[in-house]
Amino acid sequence: MTFTHFIENSRTGKITITFEEILGQRGILERLNANEVVIGDGGFVFALEKRGYVKAGPWTPEAAVTHPEAVRQLHREFLRAGSNVMQAFTFYASDDKLENRGQTLKITGAQVNEAACDLAREVANEGDALMAGGVCQTPSYLSCKSETEVKAIFKKQLDVFIKKNVDFLIAEYFEHVEEAEWAVQVLKMSGKPVAASMCIGPQGDMHGVPPGECAVRLVKAGAQIVGVNCHFDPLTCVEAVKMMKAAVEKAGLKAHYMVQPLAYHTPDCNCQGFIDLPEFPFALEPRILTRWDMHKYAREAYNAGIRFIGGCCGFEPYHIRAVAEELAPERGFLPQASDKHGLWGAALEMHTKPWVRARARRDYWENIHPASGRPKCPSLSSPEDESIFGSRYLIQHIFLYRS
Amino acid sequence: MTFTHFIENSRTGKITITFEEILGQRGILERLNANEVVIGDGGFVFALEKRGYVKAGPWTPEAAVTHPEAVRQLHREFLRAGSNVMQAFTFYASDDKLENRGQTLKITGAQVNEAACDLAREVANEGDALMAGGVCQTPSYLSCKSETEVKAIFKKQLDVFIKKNVDFLIAEYFEHVEEAEWAVQVLKMSGKPVAASMCIGPQGDMHGVPPGECAVRLVKAGAQIVGVNCHFDPLTCVEAVKMMKAAVEKAGLKAHYMVQPLAYHTPDCNCQGFIDLPEFPFALEPRILTRWDMHKYAREAYNAGIRFIGGCCGFEPYHIRAVAEELAPERGFLPQASDKHGLWGAALEMHTKPWVRARARRDYWENIHPASGRPKCPSLSSPEDESIFGSRYLIQHIFLYRS
Amino acid sequence: MTFTHFIENSRTGKITITFEEILGQRGILERLNANEVVIGDGGFVFALEKRGYVKAGPWTPEAAVTHPEAVRQLHREFLRAGSNVMQAFTFYASDDKLENRGQTLKITGAQVNEAACDLAREVANEGDALMAGGVCQTPSYLSCKSETEVKAIFKKQLDVFIKKNVDFLIAEYFEHVEEAEWAVQVLKMSGKPVAASMCIGPQGDMHGVPPGECAVRLVKAGAQIVGVNCHFDPLTCVEAVKMMKAAVEKAGLKAHYMVQPLAYHTPDCNCQGFIDLPEFPFALEPRILTRWDMHKYAREAYNAGIRFIGGCCGFEPYHIRAVAEELAPERGFLPQASDKHGLWGAALEMHTKPWVRARARRDYWENIHPASGRPKCPSLSSPEDESIFGSRYLIQHIFLYRS
Amino acid sequence: MTFTHFIENSRTGKITITFEEILGQRGILERLNANEVVIGDGGFVFALEKRGYVKAGPWTPEAAVTHPEAVRQLHREFLRAGSNVMQAFTFYASDDKLENRGQTLKITGAQVNEAACDLAREVANEGDALMAGGVCQTPSYLSCKSETEVKAIFKKQLDVFIKKNVDFLIAEYFEHVEEAEWAVQVLKMSGKPVAASMCIGPQGDMHGVPPGECAVRLVKAGAQIVGVNCHFDPLTCVEAVKMMKAAVEKAGLKAHYMVQPLAYHTPDCNCQGFIDLPEFPFALEPRILTRWDMHKYAREAYNAGIRFIGGCCGFEPYHIRAVAEELAPERGFLPQASDKHGLWGAALEMHTKPWVRARARRDYWENIHPASGRPKCPSLSSPEDESIFGSRYLIQHIFLYRS
Repeated sequence: MTFTHFIENSRTGKITITFEEILGQRGILERLNANEVVIGDGGFVFALEKRGYVKAGPWTPEAAVTHPEAVRQLHREFLRAGSNVMQAFTFYASDDKLENRGQTLKITGAQVNEAACDLAREVANEGDALMAGGVCQTPSYLSCKSETEVKAIFKKQLDVFIKKNVDFLIAEYFEHVEEAEWAVQVLKMSGKPVAASMCIGPQGDMHGVPPGECAVRLVKAGAQIVGVNCHFDPLTCVEAVKMMKAAVEKAGLKAHYMVQPLAYHTPDCNCQGFIDLPEFPFALEPRILTRWDMHKYAREAYNAGIRFIGGCCGFEPYHIRAVAEELAPERGFLPQASDKHGLWGAALEMHTKPWVRARARRDYWENIHPASGRPKCPSLSSPEDESIFGSRYLIQHIFLYRS
Repeated sequence: MTFTHFIENSRTGKITITFEEILGQRGILERLNANEVVIGDGGFVFALEKRGYVKAGPWTPEAAVTHPEAVRQLHREFLRAGSNVMQAFTFYASDDKLENRGQTLKITGAQVNEAACDLAREVANEGDALMAGGVCQTPSYLSCKSETEVKAIFKKQLDVFIKKNVDFLIAEYFEHVEEAEWAVQVLKMSGKPVAASMCIGPQGDMHGVPPGECAVRLVKAGAQIVGVNCHFDPLTCVEAVKMMKAAVEKAGLKAHYMVQPLAYHTPDCNCQGFIDLPEFPFALEPRILTRWDMHKYAREAYNAGIRFIGGCCGFEPYHIRAVAEELAPERGFLPQASDKHGLWGAALEMHTKPWVRARARRDYWENIHPASGRPKCPSLSSPEDESIFGSRYLIQHIFLYRS
Repeated sequence: MTFTHFIENSRTGKITITFEEILGQRGILERLNANEVVIGDGGFVFALEKRGYVKAGPWTPEAAVTHPEAVRQLHREFLRAGSNVMQAFTFYASDDKLENRGQTLKITGAQVNEAACDLAREVANEGDALMAGGVCQTPSYLSCKSETEVKAIFKKQLDVFIKKNVDFLIAEYFEHVEEAEWAVQVLKMSGKPVAASMCIGPQGDMHGVPPGECAVRLVKAGAQIVGVNCHFDPLTCVEAVKMMKAAVEKAGLKAHYMVQPLAYHTPDCNCQGFIDLPEFPFALEPRILTRWDMHKYAREAYNAGIRFIGGCCGFEPYHIRAVAEELAPERGFLPQASDKHGLWGAALEMHTKPWVRARARRDYWENIHPASGRPKCPSLSSPEDESIFGSRYLIQHIFLYRS
Repeated sequence: MTFTHFIENSRTGKITITFEEILGQRGILERLNANEVVIGDGGFVFALEKRGYVKAGPWTPEAAVTHPEAVRQLHREFLRAGSNVMQAFTFYASDDKLENRGQTLKITGAQVNEAACDLAREVANEGDALMAGGVCQTPSYLSCKSETEVKAIFKKQLDVFIKKNVDFLIAEYFEHVEEAEWAVQVLKMSGKPVAASMCIGPQGDMHGVPPGECAVRLVKAGAQIVGVNCHFDPLTCVEAVKMMKAAVEKAGLKAHYMVQPLAYHTPDCNCQGFIDLPEFPFALEPRILTRWDMHKYAREAYNAGIRFIGGCCGFEPYHIRAVAEELAPERGFLPQASDKHGLWGAALEMHTKPWVRARARRDYWENIHPASGRPKCPSLSSPEDESIFGSRYLIQHIFLYRS
């Protein structure tokens, strides 16, 4: 590294960081090529839903225009927590999606995309972060539109990202590798670095293409970084990325790896991930990972050779901070928000009760098996799918005609 | 009511509210005397800890000075969620506490209290909310200082609240009824309405004084509103307030009632509440209440005759919104943030998967028993207390001398 | 004691017991007056239901006539396990009950009662055990028949017990203290010792008469031993008997105490006990107590001053053996079946795997929290009751008329 | 079939069975070749351990000599429950094992084997059951003795089985396919039908030989029936047998299939099965399958094409009865013990409480998710293995030297 870091004991509160931008920001590939850890951000739609700015169901990001202060604040919290990537909040921000999702305000997709880029850039400039623009899967692909039509949608979003001069591009949340390839092909036209991330687990994409084969195809399509995001819990996602890495290496190709999982425990998912769990999206609380679960995740991801490590739905700023704290030895510094966090609970030493003070140690939190406080709830659910729905639908249908 | 409300279907997004302040703000007692519901806010220290601005352990609120944008944003989210009370973020904000808790910045308690009042007032003015100042239990009481000394501490904070002209005062988070009485006596000197809230459950205060007797004493000390906050889950807190109400009425006294519980399920607490649970404070995630749990809480509190209904640690803006949505029929309107929330999950009707659309109904969410995703974790914990700590401490002590 | 015992290391297998009967059997009161522990037997209807000889629903004991070898074998197993009481298997063995419960064989209540007494006596003579006859609550009481009619039913059973010269009498499984008093009054006519046991928990009988008051009334009616059996788990039952003991002592009376609980964990019961749990009677398996749970129960009961310690539904021979092993230091000997059991798992030392051998120690089994292997099941249930049934019944009723 | 069966409504109690033996007993292969269901028995060592006749740890079957009435009674219960196979109780009954396991009585392996055969034959003659003799894995194989030596041990047991003229032979509970092959080769010398069953799951034997390959090798060695027993729960075992069947058919071979699983839920096992679970063998209670779980198992096994369906450790008579009841439509009759069981809880219709009567229906019990009553216990465990033991052992070792 070209600048000085100091790991500071979180108790002293003294942290001196000479930010990258003072010396000229280095790009995503420079960092990854240097084997540095790049920490992603967390899940904007879920976090802003809980804060009151995104509607679960449509999940559209018009808050970038209507409530910029809320979006800016969330970016800032992730930056303070250690994030090196401010991804513009543009999920589902194409015109068709905005209309189709019941967005009645007179805001265009372009307006949202531009506002989102400006907010991300503004906060990225406050610290050591890059700004990224992203595209994700489209209704057009699912409704069997042509390659040309689907690519046109990506192109429209890309135009904004080029205009706003993002640092790199992310094609993420794809369930079908073919559509992800198309997205990569479009994004590559920009000349900027491209990361490609699918929302799949070890069982592969919706046509059963295994993670390894998906990764190889995405690298061949031009992605310099490949991985997975959303849909599954951290350890499941790391497992899928390991399969990607093994396949890419076996094919004699080179790539960097990324992972941005859920902050929910989902051992009971089927291949379609947490959306099929009966708790999605309004009763996932008992599944939320603790900060200590995040330490395990960060270490596991790092050990698997993944260097772009972030989060998706459910990740709050303190989750990202836990990733940054776990990898502080490798990175050489703690994030700013660790001023407000004793490592492994160290600040509990100030508690008045001796048995709470006794929790101020690593092995206590590493080994805790937290209770749910819900003795009438199970540990695992049964995912729902179309076949089950089929019979349920039938029953409802009958009821409708009876009543 | 003196103004017009419209309950709007959350799908249309059209909500017209003529704010109180246009017509002149009514006070807390006017509202409660009119049998209106007053919705409190949520837990600032816990929410800001997760956002990176409060350190768990000291729990001091210097962010009001150092990061006002973060505090303002959280106030705003609660206001949008339906809160009628912007409580200045002054928890543990006395000078002695700030020093004693390792606060090394050169910020005085008065600076924090003033900044906190300004932020609360600024946001209160953006909607139909009152601004309150609060005091809570002191280290001085626990270290057996005199009534005069303890009251001097309350007085110092009160001076700021008077200067900033708060709408009413809250004495909250008291484990000992005697100290709470002293606080009420000091706050009464202001002439402003006083609410008194203890952090106790149905078993009573730390000397075993039952909730009913506590309430009677606090009303006699001058509190117009009495209740409980923090330490226990919503249904436990409502139970304790019911006991207060029964005793106050039996004593032939009159009062209003308030409840501001945890947003954690804590059926396994002993009399000292969630602090003694082994998961406190860093592994409480699986206990977090869903928004649907909050509907039950709000209804239960309302049915118990409680009209000041809010939250404490763990309450995020969407929890308060759920309270406001449950009580929309009684209040006559939905909160602003319901623009971004289909009632009972209605906006899931837009989902592409039919079995997710099938979740867009009240009985689905009312009856869900959410899984923890943690099959190796129990449902309940065993609270720790000093006696257990005793033996554990002994073991550690032995280890220290061996190694 | 008047004879020699040897506590034998269970590994050597050498146990020499000079049985009481050689020297002349001492009665139940002599033993209890001498502060000896009297170990009861386990639950015949549940154990024989699983073995295929009792029908769940009617629960009638005609197996004493039709399959004496099965009843004799179960008596023998309890005797070997340490039981000092062979209670004749006469549960629900009155003529009206047998008819009313669909018993179609041509067997009279008297035949069943006599056969049951003969089997119990035969096995009691094989070891250090007394033989008891028992009566329990009647349909007649519930259908509001007169005291005379109800007492006539008890008298009819008592005639058989007198003819068969039982060592003492038990009035057990009463939900209403009044009916239990009537039973005691009848049994007292025999001049034999009378034990009275109700199937209630700390909340008292079905009319809300608290356990203490029940006990005082039963002692006044003439019972020398009082306590509870069935319906609740061991620790709940011990709690109820503690309340009985406190009240009897407070009333200046004297009595001995007995407890014969379920072998199921039932923390979620309402006042009517395990019958209202949705798992009753065919899905109680996950609630079955381990032998180590029984050690805790036996110690708790002993410490509460209870000396007649046995079991009811769910108790298998190994559960009784665990009671006998826990109380071996007090009793001075191990039961015969401990030849086939290493104390606290000691015989695992012979296992080939070192990590299984490591389980051959007391603290391992004392501290285990056994998993259910059922991640889709909750920890606790919601008891059903008539009001819930009401609405459910309505729904079913509607369905019946529709289809 | 060559005789008349009547499925009888369990409520009438009228069941007329003309037993096979009246017409001449048909052998195991005749039955399987005719595609009939053959129901096995349950687990003798575990059931008799709970009854007080087998010592956990050594697990040796000397009770056949010392307490024949207990062994006979258990055989009879399984016969009544529907078992068509009375397997002589000879588990671990070789001389070396008996000595090596601390058996101090002067009983030889031959005596045990002979007594066990006599008891099994006696009860088999009471109904429609065959009598089988079995061998299982030997300490000799594990201590690397030669094929000749290991085979000599099997031969010694076989001599007794030939003398006692068993109907067929079972080589069961083998963790290593090679040893199982040797056993089959020895048993084949008798000219009697040979069944071979390994205690493995879908991951294969202890050398990683997959179930399919194991099965092919055993069929080639001469076994006419192949399958798995013990170590895993029913559905896991059925899965492993499916793999066996697929491989045998793919190899162009012919065989019949058997499955005799645990009656414990073990989704958390590693490849060595339930022995590595921390609850083995004394805290498995919460994992015990209900009778309704057994219905699912029986149907699953039948649908997989398995026709020899029984049980191993944990199976009690009522579990076997549930298998027989589920397959009554295919078999054409109910077992004798169904006289004492209303199908799907039908006899609860006689209960006095309406909400208990409402449980007298199939869908109630099919859909129940039974609670454990243990809110402080998890749903799943972490299996122990040697590597974990390693570090634990080290710690204990250190403690030993310190104290």
